Amino acid sequence: MSAPVYINAYASVAGEKEGQGPLGSCFDRVVTDSHFGRDTWEQAETQLQLDTLSLALGKAGLSAEDIDLACAGDLENQCIASAYSMRETGCPFLGLYGACSTMAEGLITAALMTEAGIAEHSLALTSSHFSAAERQFRFPLSYGGQRTPTAQWTCTAAGAVILSRSSCGIRVKGGCIGTVADLGITDINNMGSAMAPAAADTILRYLSATGTAPEDYDFIVTGDLGIVGSSLLNDILLKQGTDISSVHRDCGMMIFDGSSQDTHCGGSGCGCGASVLCGYFLPALERGDAGNILFAATGALMSPLSVQQGSSIPAISHLIHLGKD
Amino acid sequence: MSAPVYINAYASVAGEKEGQGPLGSCFDRVVTDSHFGRDTWEQAETQLQLDTLSLALGKAGLSAEDIDLACAGDLENQCIASAYSMRETGCPFLGLYGACSTMAEGLITAALMTEAGIAEHSLALTSSHFSAAERQFRFPLSYGGQRTPTAQWTCTAAGAVILSRSSCGIRVKGGCIGTVADLGITDINNMGSAMAPAAADTILRYLSATGTAPEDYDFIVTGDLGIVGSSLLNDILLKQGTDISSVHRDCGMMIFDGSSQDTHCGGSGCGCGASVLCGYFLPALERGDAGNILFAATGALMSPLSVQQGSSIPAISHLIHLGKD
Repeated sequence: MSAPVYINAYASVAGEKEGQGPLGSCFDRVVTDSHFGRDTWEQAETQLQLDTLSLALGKAGLSAEDIDLACAGDLENQCIASAYSMRETGCPFLGLYGACSTMAEGLITAALMTEAGIAEHSLALTSSHFSAAERQFRFPLSYGGQRTPTAQWTCTAAGAVILSRSSCGIRVKGGCIGTVADLGITDINNMGSAMAPAAADTILRYLSATGTAPEDYDFIVTGDLGIVGSSLLNDILLKQGTDISSVHRDCGMMIFDGSSQDTHCGGSGCGCGASVLCGYFLPALERGDAGNILFAATGALMSPLSVQQGSSIPAISHLIHLGKD
Repeated sequence: MSAPVYINAYASVAGEKEGQGPLGSCFDRVVTDSHFGRDTWEQAETQLQLDTLSLALGKAGLSAEDIDLACAGDLENQCIASAYSMRETGCPFLGLYGACSTMAEGLITAALMTEAGIAEHSLALTSSHFSAAERQFRFPLSYGGQRTPTAQWTCTAAGAVILSRSSCGIRVKGGCIGTVADLGITDINNMGSAMAPAAADTILRYLSATGTAPEDYDFIVTGDLGIVGSSLLNDILLKQGTDISSVHRDCGMMIFDGSSQDTHCGGSGCGCGASVLCGYFLPALERGDAGNILFAATGALMSPLSVQQGSSIPAISHLIHLGKD
C-alpha cells in the first residue's frame, strides 16, 4: 500500500464454550452468560460487539467519536447485530455482508479507505453467536437435532481491529478481494468443503501477484474451514503445485478441542476467525513470534432458503497480509 | 476527490408494475415475467441483476473480466441475489448490506476504491424484487394481507453503475458515509418515517462539510422515503433552517402513480432508488438537463425478527454527489 496503514489496537471476546477451548486464555474476555445481559440472543450479539469494540477503543486510547469509518457485518438476517451496535456508536458505518469472511473484508475495506485518506482511524468489527446462528441457519436449539460429522460449531465470539495512519507495530502490507467460487456443495452442514476452493483461489492469486511462496510467511491462516475444509484446501493447492501445509493454520480447528468439546469439524462463524486473529495471531505479530502472516477468511454465501431451493453454496475468501513494520 | 472518478455507463431494468408507472419509458428494459425465466423469485432477482449488469457492460463496451471490483448487495437474507449473480461474473466482489441505501453505499465504496487506485473499472449493483421481499419481510403473498396506509411497495427493479478513471461526462464529486439514526419507529409498515432522520442527518452533514446550500444543486434525491417519509424529511430540515423542498425529489414517490397504482406511500427497495437514479437522474445529468445532484439513498436496517422482538428500526443514509465534469 502506498500510504502505510497500521493496526492500532484490537480486542477479542468469546463465549463460555470458546473460553473452555485451547485458546481460552488468549481472549481479552470470556463471557459465560450466553445472553450477555440482554433479553434475546440477537441482542446478545449486539452487546458482544459493543463489549469487544469498547475493549479495543480502550487499548487505543480512543473513543467511538474518533472512529471516522466503521466496517462491520455479521451472519444475522439483515446484519442486525451490527446495525444495532453501530446505532450505539454513532460512527460513519459501511455495512458489509461477507458471511464468515467479514473480518478480512472489513480489514481490506477499512485499510483502503484509510489509505485513501478519508479516515484517520477506522474499524473492522464482526461477530457471531452460536444460538442466534443455529436457529436461523439450521434448527431451533430446543429441537435437539443431530449434527452431522462434517458440521461445524458456530462460535460465540467477536473481534475488533482499529486501523490508523500513525505508525504502530503491525502494518497492513497488502490484500486480495475474493471472487465467488462454487464447488457444487448443497449440504448446509458441509460448509468447509464449500469454502475451500475460494480460499485456494484467493491464496494462489495473492502469492502469484506478489511473487511470493508459502515459506515467505510464518502463517497462512484460514478463518473457519474446519477439518474437512482444511484438508481439501491443502489438496487443491498441492494439485496446483503449492504446498502450504507447514504454515497453514485454521482458526476453526484451533478454537475448540475436537476430542473433548464435541464440535465435530471445528468452529465457524464470523467471530471464529475474528477472535482467533485478535486473540492469537495479532499478539504473536506484536510479540515478534511471527513477522508476516496472510489471513484468508472464508464465507459461505448461501441462505437457508437458497439451499432449500436446491442451489449450491457459493463461497468467497478475502485475504489480508499483515506484518511487522 | 483527488483523482477523479467518472460514471462510465449505467443501466436500469424494471418489472411490469414499475414499467406501467410514470417512469416506465425511462428504464432500459421492462420485464413482464416476474420470474425472469427462472424457477423462484429469489433466482429471478439474481437474473434481474445479471440482465442489468449485462446492459451496463454493453454500453461501456466492457466485459465482466474488465471489472476490477464489484460492490453489490440486496435485501434478501444473506444477500443471496448478489452472491449468485457475482458467482456468474467472476468479479472481485465486496458484499454490502445497507438495505435500500445500497446503491449509494456501493457508489461511495466503488468510487473510493477506484480513486485509491485498486480498480480501473468498478461496479455498483443492487436490486429488489417485490415478491421475494414481501414474503421475507411481511407476509406470504398468497395470504393476501391488507396493506396499511403508510406501507410502500417494494419495487422489482435494479440499477448498475460502472465507474472508471477515464474521463466521461459525469463525475463523482463527493460523498458522505451515513451514521445510524433511530426515531423509535417500531412499525415495519412505516419505514419512510424510520428513514427520514437518517436522510436529514446525512444531507445536513454534507451541506455543512462542503459549505453549500440546497440551491447549489439541481436535485437533492432521496431513495425511497415515500410520501410520509419525504414530508417528515422536509419538516426535520426546515426545523434546522434548511429548506430543500424546491429541489427535493424522492424516487419512491416518482416510480409509481399513487392515484392509479394502489401503492400507498410509494415505492421502496434497493432497486427503487437504483433504477430511478440510472433511468432518470443520470440521463438528465448526461443530457445536461441537470448539472449537479445529491443522491441520498436511505436504508432501514431492521429485520423481521428484530421488529418481532420489539426493537425499533435503525436507519442509515449514504450520499453521493454527482455532476457534469
